[in-house]
Amino acid sequence: MERNFVVGIDVGGQTSKLGVVDAQGCILAQKVIRSDTYGSDAVAYIDALAQAVKDVIAEAGKDGQILGIGVGAPNANHYTGEISYAPNLAWAADAAVPFAKMLSERLGGLPVSMTNDANAAAVGEMTYGAARGMKDFIMITLGTGVGSGIVIDGKLVYGHDGFAGELGHVCVERGGRQCGCGRKGCLETYCSATGVARTAKEWLEKSDEPSLLRSVEKIDSREVYRAAKAGDELSKKIFDYTGTLLGTAFADFISFSAPEAIVLFGGLAKSKEFLTEPIERAMNENVLKIWKGKVKLLYSELDESDAAILGASALAWN
Amino acid sequence: MERNFVVGIDVGGQTSKLGVVDAQGCILAQKVIRSDTYGSDAVAYIDALAQAVKDVIAEAGKDGQILGIGVGAPNANHYTGEISYAPNLAWAADAAVPFAKMLSERLGGLPVSMTNDANAAAVGEMTYGAARGMKDFIMITLGTGVGSGIVIDGKLVYGHDGFAGELGHVCVERGGRQCGCGRKGCLETYCSATGVARTAKEWLEKSDEPSLLRSVEKIDSREVYRAAKAGDELSKKIFDYTGTLLGTAFADFISFSAPEAIVLFGGLAKSKEFLTEPIERAMNENVLKIWKGKVKLLYSELDESDAAILGASALAWN
Repeated sequence: MERNFVVGIDVGGQTSKLGVVDAQGCILAQKVIRSDTYGSDAVAYIDALAQAVKDVIAEAGKDGQILGIGVGAPNANHYTGEISYAPNLAWAADAAVPFAKMLSERLGGLPVSMTNDANAAAVGEMTYGAARGMKDFIMITLGTGVGSGIVIDGKLVYGHDGFAGELGHVCVERGGRQCGCGRKGCLETYCSATGVARTAKEWLEKSDEPSLLRSVEKIDSREVYRAAKAGDELSKKIFDYTGTLLGTAFADFISFSAPEAIVLFGGLAKSKEFLTEPIERAMNENVLKIWKGKVKLLYSELDESDAAILGASALAWN
Repeated sequence: MERNFVVGIDVGGQTSKLGVVDAQGCILAQKVIRSDTYGSDAVAYIDALAQAVKDVIAEAGKDGQILGIGVGAPNANHYTGEISYAPNLAWAADAAVPFAKMLSERLGGLPVSMTNDANAAAVGEMTYGAARGMKDFIMITLGTGVGSGIVIDGKLVYGHDGFAGELGHVCVERGGRQCGCGRKGCLETYCSATGVARTAKEWLEKSDEPSLLRSVEKIDSREVYRAAKAGDELSKKIFDYTGTLLGTAFADFISFSAPEAIVLFGGLAKSKEFLTEPIERAMNENVLKIWKGKVKLLYSELDESDAAILGASALAWN
């Protein structure tokens, strides 16, 4: 029987989503299990996950037709197949878990390919989404943090150790905001959803400018978006500032790999009506002449609820 | 007869150097012709170059044994084989010259592969030098400007349009020094040989600190090196400043492609006794924890007078 289907698994801090996917990017069956109820017992979690994979394959009626398993997970190393010291996964917080090997053993030796979630998103976009047919692009995920997946000549860049593509931790402001990574001024301290909320709080404190945000109890990037939609000037300026920083950073990224496009994904990317103009302006103002007006700014075409499974599944095709 | 030899051509503003090279990186015969005596007549220059190639092959006694020609040239595009709008080459200053095609036609159809000089240097180092056996590294050329060649998974990164790897034009100081590219604060305005001379002149002007450099008539980076060797404190501080900027920039480059090493080449790299410490310090201070102390800083192992021919020749092996 031909093996024309793959399984995608997105391992998150609270839940793990998995699904059987066909070559067109349709999810035939899917399932969610908890990731956070196994304490430090990696074996118990992977046992449960393997069972869920078997269940979902059976549900899709594709026993014997699975080519491989793709996994997107925090701190996942493509080369070693390990998840190492992932602070949000209790069973891999203090250890290097040989995840790919353990999962494969429980699934009759099916090949397991893994990488981090931003890289998986890039492969997903190349296989099923906005970057179909592209050989050179950079995926930027704007979520709680800023992640990235870099594709060069049709291949994901893993680097010497498997950890390449940490563009959220490029420094955009020397001595700037404290980052969770221990350093200061990283792109993600300004341009993630969290970064936008930080900007809002800082600006509300340091000025008296009237703003709808002043009546919001818990400010997050969604509230800033809502206020901007309602015409709030301060909120629009926050997006302008965020987009300008992103575009300025993108200009440097372009000098590196000369991509055809930069593709944005993630919760914050939904504010594209306020982000596109400042990003494109700053990118084209700051990039070398040869690239002015030439690098496309695109947004993910994958449905957000499916994207994580699709991205992970795409790893399994190669 | 087996084709076990290649020809490397380094096209410079004043002269073009070429040589026949074997698989071990030995230059069997070489020649220099002028690049600057043909005005805007690209045909005349390429005629002369093709003749020089024939001569040097004959001199090496390798007629019929040449696999291909590799060319390193400013503004050379690997994909199109053109040299376009190269300000320092009169015959390609206002046009896109189909260099590879024209040269190949004059050499009985031998394949011609070309790229810019920094990329050629990277391939040269990978084929014959300090990066032998490495699949992921970044070559940084510290000359009049700062150039770069990025190797990922054993292949040079050309990007979507063939112009990837312009790391000399990453911005290290917003609104900083005016760069020849029209923008401000590019790495090469601080960390090229020219940048070092600029730093020296600026610092001599703005302070009264005694320095051997005050008695130097025409300050260039070699004079700064000489003064530092003689114990001049200001000159040592200039290298410390330059190395710190380089190391800080390298930390961001590492986030991109997670290289095994950064390899330095060019006139300024000869000041390594004053550059290594500040570069390594700043690189390891600024890089993400996973890469601290892990990325090697290496210096080119190719003899400088041969490096340009060797680098270009290396392109021809693939």
